[in-house]
Amino acid sequence: MANSPSGDSMTDRLVRILETFTPTRTVQTAAEIARHAGLPDSTAHRIVGELVATGLLERADDRRVRVGMRLWELATRSSYALHLRQVALPYMERVQARVRQHTQLAIREQDEALFLERLSDPASGANVTRIAGRLPLHASSSGLVLLAYADADVQERLLSAPLRPMSRETLVDPAALRRKLAEVRRLGHAAAPGFVETVSTGVAVPIRERTGEVVAALSVVLPRDAAIDQPLAELRRAAQDIRVALDPPPIERESDRAAGG
Amino acid sequence: MANSPSGDSMTDRLVRILETFTPTRTVQTAAEIARHAGLPDSTAHRIVGELVATGLLERADDRRVRVGMRLWELATRSSYALHLRQVALPYMERVQARVRQHTQLAIREQDEALFLERLSDPASGANVTRIAGRLPLHASSSGLVLLAYADADVQERLLSAPLRPMSRETLVDPAALRRKLAEVRRLGHAAAPGFVETVSTGVAVPIRERTGEVVAALSVVLPRDAAIDQPLAELRRAAQDIRVALDPPPIERESDRAAGG
Repeated sequence: MANSPSGDSMTDRLVRILETFTPTRTVQTAAEIARHAGLPDSTAHRIVGELVATGLLERADDRRVRVGMRLWELATRSSYALHLRQVALPYMERVQARVRQHTQLAIREQDEALFLERLSDPASGANVTRIAGRLPLHASSSGLVLLAYADADVQERLLSAPLRPMSRETLVDPAALRRKLAEVRRLGHAAAPGFVETVSTGVAVPIRERTGEVVAALSVVLPRDAAIDQPLAELRRAAQDIRVALDPPPIERESDRAAGG
Repeated sequence: MANSPSGDSMTDRLVRILETFTPTRTVQTAAEIARHAGLPDSTAHRIVGELVATGLLERADDRRVRVGMRLWELATRSSYALHLRQVALPYMERVQARVRQHTQLAIREQDEALFLERLSDPASGANVTRIAGRLPLHASSSGLVLLAYADADVQERLLSAPLRPMSRETLVDPAALRRKLAEVRRLGHAAAPGFVETVSTGVAVPIRERTGEVVAALSVVLPRDAAIDQPLAELRRAAQDIRVALDPPPIERESDRAAGG
């Protein structure tokens, strides 16, 4: 549709505009959006106006806009991954209540681990911006699980590209990573001591659908030298319960479309 | 940008396409999308192709597509309302653990209550599709709270339009609704016995920012004749704790952009 002189589609430009909004840049003027998206001012102004008209962006004040709730609603209400997240949530709460460490749900997305959910104690605070955050597949315990059970072509693509370290202990040698992935498949879990941060150990297990296909990873982040047996047992129990609970999305009655009360 | 002969913008058509995906229609062919969006087949095919190229839609199989996780990620990572939801979640968990009934967080969006979060017991099952669902402001306890503290022009607009009943007990008389809103402001909570479903009573309290502005409603759905005192005390305590916790989104370090482990 009406490609620009540079050949990118309207959809490309729309995504470039949405990508300029980040956890640390939640409110922008059209001119700031133009600069960050690399678009002409007039183009950005016009598209921002259209996006505000449809509710995908919202006016924050006279000059600035932010991402609209309409976008989240459209992105969420039909999403399988969010169905997965919703089914998993009560079991994640159980893990969190018993292990009392950050408890996370991730899927593989574009060769990274994308975090759909993260539960923390009220006391532990912080970390509130990390939902919808990403980590490299080879560094996080969630990513290692998702990579270990991914198709061979995904593994080969990752293993043939440079592996960036996140800490001094991240596996960046392809042969070592290959051995680690085999270990994950053999043990049925991934432990990543210090791979992301020196002070912590991630432990993750696969979440499978009824078919056996791995669709997500469930993980906890422990202090570096904590014993992993009890957390691992809780993760496995939760993963098994989620597998049983993961029926196809129920058919929804019209009268039933939102929460009661 | 390149409006169609009918004068709608590309953004309009994009939204019309995204709107065809619902909790009960999560996967569609381009032809089905065209039909549900009221767009010519060729237009729908072209835009769907662009949306798949950018990841806003994903291929589900050879012929069908679904909403992509990229869309959710872009909608979520910079959203204030999702920041609110993330801050509120631990306190919602506490309410849910103590009241053991559905616990919900809603904001006002386009003259309806939009549900950002809903917690349920693992045992209670079901209801998993209701996140991102909506209810009329005048019917649900959450909506009554959001309406009671909304600007006068929002209230007048709602009160001057026909009020659709959801049950035989929904308030549909403008004078009765006006009295109810005054009661909500006086008591600081809304009780909605049977307004949505005959068998249940919604109870909601406002969530305020530090400035005092009401930004959301926190609610539980109780059996119709349950006592509301203890649930209400839990809701009030949670709302107060959320108010204190609701600082502006923290500045995020680059090294910190996703969850550890």
